[in-house]
Amino acid sequence: MRHIRIAVDAMGSDRAPYAEIGGVVLAVNEGYGEVILVGNEEVLRKELRRYKLRYPERITIQNASEVIGMDEPPAISVRRKKDSSIMVATELVKEGKADCLVSAGNTGAVVCATTLVWGLIPGIERPGIAIIFPTLEGVCILIDVGANIDPKPIHLYQYAIMGTVYSKYLLGKDNPRVGLLNVGEEESKGTDFVKDTHQLLLRSKLNFIGNVEGGDIFRGKADVIVCDGFVGNVALKISESLAYALIEFLRKHIKKSNLAKIGALFLKGTFKKLKKEIDYAEYGGAPLLGVDGVCTICHGASSYWAIKNALSFTFFSVKNDIKNHIREEIETLGGELK
Amino acid sequence: MRHIRIAVDAMGSDRAPYAEIGGVVLAVNEGYGEVILVGNEEVLRKELRRYKLRYPERITIQNASEVIGMDEPPAISVRRKKDSSIMVATELVKEGKADCLVSAGNTGAVVCATTLVWGLIPGIERPGIAIIFPTLEGVCILIDVGANIDPKPIHLYQYAIMGTVYSKYLLGKDNPRVGLLNVGEEESKGTDFVKDTHQLLLRSKLNFIGNVEGGDIFRGKADVIVCDGFVGNVALKISESLAYALIEFLRKHIKKSNLAKIGALFLKGTFKKLKKEIDYAEYGGAPLLGVDGVCTICHGASSYWAIKNALSFTFFSVKNDIKNHIREEIETLGGELK
Repeated sequence: MRHIRIAVDAMGSDRAPYAEIGGVVLAVNEGYGEVILVGNEEVLRKELRRYKLRYPERITIQNASEVIGMDEPPAISVRRKKDSSIMVATELVKEGKADCLVSAGNTGAVVCATTLVWGLIPGIERPGIAIIFPTLEGVCILIDVGANIDPKPIHLYQYAIMGTVYSKYLLGKDNPRVGLLNVGEEESKGTDFVKDTHQLLLRSKLNFIGNVEGGDIFRGKADVIVCDGFVGNVALKISESLAYALIEFLRKHIKKSNLAKIGALFLKGTFKKLKKEIDYAEYGGAPLLGVDGVCTICHGASSYWAIKNALSFTFFSVKNDIKNHIREEIETLGGELK
Repeated sequence: MRHIRIAVDAMGSDRAPYAEIGGVVLAVNEGYGEVILVGNEEVLRKELRRYKLRYPERITIQNASEVIGMDEPPAISVRRKKDSSIMVATELVKEGKADCLVSAGNTGAVVCATTLVWGLIPGIERPGIAIIFPTLEGVCILIDVGANIDPKPIHLYQYAIMGTVYSKYLLGKDNPRVGLLNVGEEESKGTDFVKDTHQLLLRSKLNFIGNVEGGDIFRGKADVIVCDGFVGNVALKISESLAYALIEFLRKHIKKSNLAKIGALFLKGTFKKLKKEIDYAEYGGAPLLGVDGVCTICHGASSYWAIKNALSFTFFSVKNDIKNHIREEIETLGGELK
């Protein structure tokens, strides 16, 4: 059996190509398939030389002369920059030269490029970005966190199906509980959009447990939570920054007291475990759902560790045949609500 | 000069009247005006007897035979339960027997009761609930967190004016920076609703600094942040629960290791300071903005400490004449955008 081949946009992150190549080397050394690094060949070759490769034949380079910047308008830039690392990597998957894509570049551009080149899975109307959150009871998937800020109820229903597939086939949950993010538990709560979505989910065959509130995310009340991309984006960014702010508060106060400094030494291992548990880098990236191919989007500020985890996550998404499971579920479940 | 008189719905919180009376006694003993406790007279009198009062003449009781439960539909219950603690307390302010209202009861019912009985400040179309968040750079006000989940741009503009007044006259900020919660910094980002609001704020005389993202709240980038009540509600509840979840994670891991237990002892003072800094109870309650009177809404799960802080916050809102400052600003600024 041939290896799973991952096309990696090596020019996308804030610390490109350092973070990408560092992550790729780690992942490939650990046996996570083959990687095609996409970007400026000279730059990538030079960076790659700094590492000791266990399987040098499993990392190849595909030249791409352009880069789409973080602030470039997505729809325009993917059309103009045909030789950008994002577009070239996306094409590699389309041509069957790679099985999946990982990018820490301009999120909007990745969404546009994959939608344009791969198209959407039949039955899906809009792509969505999923985030895997750590909770007090394991993990939970929140969709959408920014691809679709003004969705229709049917889009959220489709996200719920795709999230259920991920939860089942990748996170190993038996009968994933689907929740709808709302301002209250009662069916009567929320905007018309949310109420319509609630009714749609009630009529579905998904394991819909009803509305969940913001506070329920970290309590682990649901395995899959759907919301519009505006709310999801705010939720994601608040969570990231609050975790950071709490650690900053703690650091600031520990610095002020010698007693606290001693205490912090004893707690070093505990802080490390906490950091690991809340660290979004542990899952490395966010699966882009709905496009007709496997794609993981990483944070622009990704560390090489986050990229490595995104690669192994993407590797297992291909290995567990996520794309076809989604196709099947959409065929089975999608029809009834049309 | 006579004391500021606070009408307190003493039957509202999850631990009523224990939390309310505990908070009231603390606040009055510290000199924060007079309080009229509203609720079942017998129950309140009995609970009150447990405390040592420094100024017994400053706490009186107003009987109210009914209570509006947390799950009762707000609009209907305030019309049906005329003798509920919320309605009676609201009427006391209307009749000039009290200067302001504090309630930890059914939030929707408090919004309905005050809107119905007091009316709105001229020029304001919808009430909004503000939350004071701790940030890395002091505090920030987020409006709305749930009173108005489907607002028009003009409502957010009015919230921005009222938030500016609170920030200036109660939190002592000179020229409060107003931000609009969005999914990106660029003017072109967001839904049509957010883009229209952006244009409205740009044309205003407020110190509008543009869009802010979820991650900017705790970074202290703005002093006043406006958003629709749906997003604000999710933001508030996520923040509360994440802070709680992080402390739970830490507690869980500290329990597992003896070394960590020793470290935690050394860090006791630091954890206490951290808790104080992130504790929403420090501000005790959320001002209800736009109604023609001063009202603070407290969390149903309020401790007596939170109630006490809500009372002192409300006391200063009246003392600093917030209501009239809002009236003036609305008259001055509100007109130009009509």
